[in-house]
Amino acid sequence: MQLPLQLQADSRESLQAQLFGQFVRQIGDGRLKPGMRIPATRQLAVDLGISRNTVLLAYERLVAEGYVQMRGPQGAFVVEHGGAVPGSLRAAGQGAPAGERAPAPPRPPVHFKGRMHHLRSPNAGEVEFDFWVGRPDPRLFPARAWRVLVERSMQQLRQGDGSYGEPSGLRRLREAVARHVGAARGIACGCDDVLITNGIQEGLNIVGRLLVGPGTAVGMESPGYLGAANVFSSFGAELLPCRVDAEGAAPDDLRSDCRLMYLTPAHQYPSGVAMSARRRQAWLQWARDRGGCLIEDDYDSDFYYDGPPLPALKAGDRDGCVIYLGTFSKSLSAGLRVGYLIVPRQLRIAAITVKGLMTNGSPGLVQGALAEYLERGDYAHHLHRLRKQYAQRRDALGAALARCFGGAAAVGAQAGMHVLWQAPDGLPPAPELENLARAQGVGVYGLESANVWLHDARQPEHCRRCLLLGYAALDCSQIATGIERLAAAVGRA
Amino acid sequence: MQLPLQLQADSRESLQAQLFGQFVRQIGDGRLKPGMRIPATRQLAVDLGISRNTVLLAYERLVAEGYVQMRGPQGAFVVEHGGAVPGSLRAAGQGAPAGERAPAPPRPPVHFKGRMHHLRSPNAGEVEFDFWVGRPDPRLFPARAWRVLVERSMQQLRQGDGSYGEPSGLRRLREAVARHVGAARGIACGCDDVLITNGIQEGLNIVGRLLVGPGTAVGMESPGYLGAANVFSSFGAELLPCRVDAEGAAPDDLRSDCRLMYLTPAHQYPSGVAMSARRRQAWLQWARDRGGCLIEDDYDSDFYYDGPPLPALKAGDRDGCVIYLGTFSKSLSAGLRVGYLIVPRQLRIAAITVKGLMTNGSPGLVQGALAEYLERGDYAHHLHRLRKQYAQRRDALGAALARCFGGAAAVGAQAGMHVLWQAPDGLPPAPELENLARAQGVGVYGLESANVWLHDARQPEHCRRCLLLGYAALDCSQIATGIERLAAAVGRA
Repeated sequence: MQLPLQLQADSRESLQAQLFGQFVRQIGDGRLKPGMRIPATRQLAVDLGISRNTVLLAYERLVAEGYVQMRGPQGAFVVEHGGAVPGSLRAAGQGAPAGERAPAPPRPPVHFKGRMHHLRSPNAGEVEFDFWVGRPDPRLFPARAWRVLVERSMQQLRQGDGSYGEPSGLRRLREAVARHVGAARGIACGCDDVLITNGIQEGLNIVGRLLVGPGTAVGMESPGYLGAANVFSSFGAELLPCRVDAEGAAPDDLRSDCRLMYLTPAHQYPSGVAMSARRRQAWLQWARDRGGCLIEDDYDSDFYYDGPPLPALKAGDRDGCVIYLGTFSKSLSAGLRVGYLIVPRQLRIAAITVKGLMTNGSPGLVQGALAEYLERGDYAHHLHRLRKQYAQRRDALGAALARCFGGAAAVGAQAGMHVLWQAPDGLPPAPELENLARAQGVGVYGLESANVWLHDARQPEHCRRCLLLGYAALDCSQIATGIERLAAAVGRA
Repeated sequence: MQLPLQLQADSRESLQAQLFGQFVRQIGDGRLKPGMRIPATRQLAVDLGISRNTVLLAYERLVAEGYVQMRGPQGAFVVEHGGAVPGSLRAAGQGAPAGERAPAPPRPPVHFKGRMHHLRSPNAGEVEFDFWVGRPDPRLFPARAWRVLVERSMQQLRQGDGSYGEPSGLRRLREAVARHVGAARGIACGCDDVLITNGIQEGLNIVGRLLVGPGTAVGMESPGYLGAANVFSSFGAELLPCRVDAEGAAPDDLRSDCRLMYLTPAHQYPSGVAMSARRRQAWLQWARDRGGCLIEDDYDSDFYYDGPPLPALKAGDRDGCVIYLGTFSKSLSAGLRVGYLIVPRQLRIAAITVKGLMTNGSPGLVQGALAEYLERGDYAHHLHRLRKQYAQRRDALGAALARCFGGAAAVGAQAGMHVLWQAPDGLPPAPELENLARAQGVGVYGLESANVWLHDARQPEHCRRCLLLGYAALDCSQIATGIERLAAAVGRA
């Protein structure tokens, strides 16, 4: 079946949204009839010349909204709804049948446009060698030690009351975090400055609820992190792009009414650049001059390989201008959902209030186990071990890329868990590379697939062949084989 | 030291905020000097004739914002800040010294006024017999079974990837929840209708972000649950009171532009009334007629004692008008921070998107353990056991109240974990009762202390002697002794 689908690469609407919309329209006007099979995702991706991830995500939404049904190996079919109208048709006010009395429920606009970020690999479980970003190696999780600690934490909870905790988090964990960031990131703070969150994502929401309203100008690194951009724009922010060069984000070109800036100084996402000391001073000065606030997302600063990193931006914050976000998702496991916020004193009460409003505090069990893990020094030891392992993997990746593709090294290799690599001239753009690699059991990701925010939906020419290669979750031999397969997939073997 | 403090009971500002503000002013203008000791909380509560909880919360804020320092048994002292100015003075633009260059960071108004709700008992660890509300008995937590399940969940996670999960929650848990609410609450739904949340509080936030914006009219039971009122007003809602009678909340007097209503049908908070079948039909009709949406908070419906309860309101929802909120905080432990949302199909994608924006999904370990606990039927068995125990405790409370105070029985005893009891004529109002009881090691709570929202800050006369008595966490003999001590405290022994 050949569908009359037309996607526009230069549209303001994402490819995924366009695809979803066209299917909905064709189901709505009867061109696609109940019970008809729709094309397989692989085939459609090839036919349209787009990434299979894009097709998968559009299909996922069609299924979730009740337009399409998956029937295992047979494929995907238009649902036979026998007269009932899928929810979103009704919500959009299209084609509500006469018998249907309920108008759509009240619904203020969710200030959120564009692509949703996704933290799971779109190829999870489907490829053998997955260079997905920001994923620690589960094989290096300190499972035995953790079991003992969770066990002990459970015993303590049994004797305690297992009830609601402090909204700001377990005091013992806040104390341990304060000591940790003091030693590891140069931040002088006490336990009252620390707020335990359900990961950095919740921390960003707390910041959003405190500081961002409709029309608030928020500076974003461009390219930058989509997960943060989405949070701010969901509160109605106007996102202002800020260029990133070899020293990191540059403060000079932000509009004068912008007083909030989101930064990833340790390992800029996605470029991997470490912000220079000079630039850090410039940002602190920027914040002082305009009474602004810097949001420092220190997501993967635990990993540095070529000498000690600069202290956190927050470490130089003498005026209470920096809100710091940290996490255990990269160093231990994202499944824990534990991160932390270090807030300037004048925002402390407001931040705890918002955290209480949002979740009444974080889960107790893991906080207890984590506190002990930090207190015993095991966490510092674990980080040391990870750094050693990840350094070898980073080296293996660099060697494999040089062996198979030659040319310039990848950027951002001095720290973190991924590099940004520009495929050599002559290779196809990222969506096609993704498809070719996937066919060989290898997951690689261009900017669009890897949660990258760009001010302009159209990528600059030099970004079209950029891939983000996460190396932390693969061992050295997997990395070598994965890159060899990628090379074979594009005829460079 | 006698402080010139003047509180106004009829002010729009809460007593706690008034107290905080007066201390800040006196510190600011030098009447209270650095190093001076401020009065002990007990004494000040007595002097001012207010609840000690009010004083404690005001002091907590003074400490957190850096005005006051606790020095253990010596008491509380004005900080000796040596020239530095506490944050909120600067933020409020008062008295910023010349040397201080930074203006306040940008900060849109957090749409939140009045009292913050608090889920921890204000007397936690300080009284022997605490009738705090909504607290399950930690001694009845199935600790042994839970340890085995967490252990197994950890083993599975070790083999899995311990990485980010689906934002909507572990599929296995969503399936188990769908089966549970089908059997226990009559709700016909599948796993895709279920969204795992970090407790009901997060569920309320998801609803708020989906449906509430500045000026949105939200109907609230009055008296009602402060934790929900605070979430909605934090998004800028206009809260409209809805009277509660012996059949539950009544839909007839809500303004015509109100299309969102928050309800606790199973066991109205705080009155304990179960909504009648007729009233349920009326609410569903109300929602259909105006294209509205009902938010059903089913917080403690697991517990019913005098025959099976009515099915959930959601069970009768044929038009996708009801959003259902459930939790494991009351049946297992609030420290788990696991609840769930059952959303109408037209809101499903939007709800998952918001959940992803807020926390990237809930922690994995506990979800795995919980799924297995439900699947094995252990959860249903556990609930059965709890109901038996809590029924005895409810009876013990009723008997003790009758023995010591005679008169009318408490309201709302047919279900839930607390009753609403009106102290007999001649007894003092709730704040004084709280203080007298606390002096005897007993925690009891008037409406203001127990997270009750009232449209009018001034309580109706008949509420002034109302106490909420939570009985689930105390055994029968503790309940008897606690009530006897209360009686003795007020001269009724």
